[in-house]
Amino acid sequence: MAAKLVQKFVDSYDDGKDTQDAGCVRAVLAELILTFLFVFTGVSASMAAGSSGKPGEAMPMATLAAVAIAHALAAGVLVTAGFHVSGGHLNPAVTVAMMVRGHLTKLRTVLYVAAQLLASSLACLLLRYLTDGMVTPVHALGAGIRPMQGLVMEVILTFSLLFVTYAMILDPRSQARTIGPLLTGLIVGANSLAGGNFTGASMNPARSFGPALATGNWTHHWVYWLGPLLGGSLAAVVYESLFVVNKSHEPLLNDF
Amino acid sequence: MAAKLVQKFVDSYDDGKDTQDAGCVRAVLAELILTFLFVFTGVSASMAAGSSGKPGEAMPMATLAAVAIAHALAAGVLVTAGFHVSGGHLNPAVTVAMMVRGHLTKLRTVLYVAAQLLASSLACLLLRYLTDGMVTPVHALGAGIRPMQGLVMEVILTFSLLFVTYAMILDPRSQARTIGPLLTGLIVGANSLAGGNFTGASMNPARSFGPALATGNWTHHWVYWLGPLLGGSLAAVVYESLFVVNKSHEPLLNDF
Amino acid sequence: MAAKLVQKFVDSYDDGKDTQDAGCVRAVLAELILTFLFVFTGVSASMAAGSSGKPGEAMPMATLAAVAIAHALAAGVLVTAGFHVSGGHLNPAVTVAMMVRGHLTKLRTVLYVAAQLLASSLACLLLRYLTDGMVTPVHALGAGIRPMQGLVMEVILTFSLLFVTYAMILDPRSQARTIGPLLTGLIVGANSLAGGNFTGASMNPARSFGPALATGNWTHHWVYWLGPLLGGSLAAVVYESLFVVNKSHEPLLNDF
Amino acid sequence: MAAKLVQKFVDSYDDGKDTQDAGCVRAVLAELILTFLFVFTGVSASMAAGSSGKPGEAMPMATLAAVAIAHALAAGVLVTAGFHVSGGHLNPAVTVAMMVRGHLTKLRTVLYVAAQLLASSLACLLLRYLTDGMVTPVHALGAGIRPMQGLVMEVILTFSLLFVTYAMILDPRSQARTIGPLLTGLIVGANSLAGGNFTGASMNPARSFGPALATGNWTHHWVYWLGPLLGGSLAAVVYESLFVVNKSHEPLLNDF
Repeated sequence: MAAKLVQKFVDSYDDGKDTQDAGCVRAVLAELILTFLFVFTGVSASMAAGSSGKPGEAMPMATLAAVAIAHALAAGVLVTAGFHVSGGHLNPAVTVAMMVRGHLTKLRTVLYVAAQLLASSLACLLLRYLTDGMVTPVHALGAGIRPMQGLVMEVILTFSLLFVTYAMILDPRSQARTIGPLLTGLIVGANSLAGGNFTGASMNPARSFGPALATGNWTHHWVYWLGPLLGGSLAAVVYESLFVVNKSHEPLLNDF
Repeated sequence: MAAKLVQKFVDSYDDGKDTQDAGCVRAVLAELILTFLFVFTGVSASMAAGSSGKPGEAMPMATLAAVAIAHALAAGVLVTAGFHVSGGHLNPAVTVAMMVRGHLTKLRTVLYVAAQLLASSLACLLLRYLTDGMVTPVHALGAGIRPMQGLVMEVILTFSLLFVTYAMILDPRSQARTIGPLLTGLIVGANSLAGGNFTGASMNPARSFGPALATGNWTHHWVYWLGPLLGGSLAAVVYESLFVVNKSHEPLLNDF
Repeated sequence: MAAKLVQKFVDSYDDGKDTQDAGCVRAVLAELILTFLFVFTGVSASMAAGSSGKPGEAMPMATLAAVAIAHALAAGVLVTAGFHVSGGHLNPAVTVAMMVRGHLTKLRTVLYVAAQLLASSLACLLLRYLTDGMVTPVHALGAGIRPMQGLVMEVILTFSLLFVTYAMILDPRSQARTIGPLLTGLIVGANSLAGGNFTGASMNPARSFGPALATGNWTHHWVYWLGPLLGGSLAAVVYESLFVVNKSHEPLLNDF
Repeated sequence: MAAKLVQKFVDSYDDGKDTQDAGCVRAVLAELILTFLFVFTGVSASMAAGSSGKPGEAMPMATLAAVAIAHALAAGVLVTAGFHVSGGHLNPAVTVAMMVRGHLTKLRTVLYVAAQLLASSLACLLLRYLTDGMVTPVHALGAGIRPMQGLVMEVILTFSLLFVTYAMILDPRSQARTIGPLLTGLIVGANSLAGGNFTGASMNPARSFGPALATGNWTHHWVYWLGPLLGGSLAAVVYESLFVVNKSHEPLLNDF
């Protein structure tokens, strides 16, 4: 049975001696599976919502709300599901922000991001097959939004996402750590309603990468890497510098 | 009083000596009542939403969102309500996935699934009476979706549902077990927005069975059995093989 | 200062010697305030949504979703807020179901229901003033729904509400008691989407009473008393008879 | 590096010796950042929703629902994120209500409100730049709503917000303190659906201030200060006078 073989392979590379640490191979596999499910759900809802094929066209607010709710619930549940295995990043902006502050090794960062990009690509290619080539909506700038404006908006929205992640989950004083991963999904929903019609409200380079690859439309794609990576890392630096009181010089969480 | 008689009957068959185990008769009754309420709520909302009688016709996203929210909230609350009595399955795909990994006896599996199908049928027949024969929307493939494509989509959506169930509720490392049942409802909402206009996003053979029986429309009905059963069991095998670290060879939960 | 006087009055009638019991006067005041806020929010959202003045006219699903979300969130938060003071009923169907099973004295039941009806009436009359006499939407049967059909639907929807209340909050085996009150609100949302266009999905005689009083439209008003009272009491009897395992013959909660 | 300098500045003014108290400078900074993010999200969603530039024009309910959900989720998550640092007010009505009952010094009250107003102004001005001067929707009275009517509605909606804040978070008997901050956001959502088309449902002078400053439209602006401040303080007085049983004459929470 294939599952037995993969399990054996995972066990041989992953000692899993710490019950708090699922080990690196397991964590990368979790990122792969969960990012696939997140992008599959989000992009499928966006495809169902998109009547025209024109990138960046504004959606009616009620349609945008449906798409935002799909992303919010999927992110909230999938991050909760993966939290104890890989940290439940599903997003290179989260992974890089963790690495910047020393919560993740460089090797694991590279493996996480690779898994996230691969997962997003597979989800988008599969959706093309499942819908007989229906157009995949790419993240694009809304009418009249210049790249620099879009960049600033992505910086702010991702700053918001990472700032609350730090405050609710990584700050030991937080009283809401159990529901923290769910709430990171809910802020994704709020931010999608705020920025959806201006930049697509990506906040996640992996979420932008798959549709770009599936359609070959790379216009302004750099905005969706630079914005989230800048905004996320800025939030990490700001929160840890200014708001973490008990600076005991130990890593906050080994497995995050 | 009838309640006294039923109670006496239940007590005579169900010793209930373990406070962690409501006993098999109680559990099957709970599956019957909760699945009835879930299907009644979901199908009633779908009937209210459906203007045309044409199966598989795409709904506007805002209408689909209303239907998805009804399913998400009903599933989240009803699974939470039944969790300590029967495990709160309400879904043959969940029940079979539990059985596949040895968390449920074969007898209980058969009784659960029978109760779920009976409950769904009763709910749909009652709704026909309450609405004077309004058409019950059946799960159907969207325009241009072939059976194999619909099957793959149901596999993936149900994989998602069961994967998070395992991760959040059955994995002892999870820190979100209290809110886990609620979140299984929320992922149903996200997945309904993703797949609603392509396959109906059933993820649950019992949810598909009642409307098919009430209308006599069994077109592609097998997709809504094979997809969820395959996807759910696959998730169970993948999660337990690869992500459960502490393999202590004891059943994870006796009463699940 | 008026507040001092009322406080003195409350203190003189209410010893509050049990920190688990806010005392009867406080509890009735809480029911008054919280039911007022619930009906004010729900009816105000319904007034904003209602374009025509025709009772029982079906709303587009996206409009119904907006109204359902308002009721769901208001109920979930306000029940949570009042839970430790009065039990957070806000609904005669809940109060009577508690009384039927002996969790509430007859005197307190009468006072609760009186406070709930008074609160609903005040909220609806105030909304007429605030909107210069805009029509208050009353609960009414949808096109083609006969009273007996509407009655059965209200029975089922309220059965659902009280069944989950018993399972999540009153059953000592429940692991979700903290979030239980919030989830009773969420099932109100799901049920509103299911029954909103058929009966208005009241599940709460107080919620129906205020608009009827404010408009003088009492058509089929009895449906919104008989249905919820029957459905709620039935759920209480069924849950306690069949699903409460540890029948230790002590009251489950003194203050509920 | 700028972050180092700011951190040094914060440390020099803020001893942070109490792990329960992030210190006043940190708290004011948190209010600044979180209010900025809340107003940015809420106003950006309102801008995306507003097709016409006419203040006070009613939105279709599904559009209003999208805007209400954005405010609800943003408030719920951001208040949760800031709760352990500053109390997570993000709203002068909350700050003043805390001060009225002695939970906050006058100095801190002034600093919090100044930070909230500055943050709201910055968010609105930035949004003008990012959207090339798109019109910022101001809070305004709906068609036919007179100022006194709008004032009463803002009083009631803010009373609701502060009453549940006291009941869920500040009352030591509450069993829902962990999810309390999230639920304050959810009641904002319900109240926005109730009052959005009548007064804009501000409940927050800072949320109203930024758009007024950015557009220079100060019509009826006083309604959005007087209503929330009156309603919030009234709720604080009513709850503490009547519903807090254990009056042990110690401050409820030092850091709130």
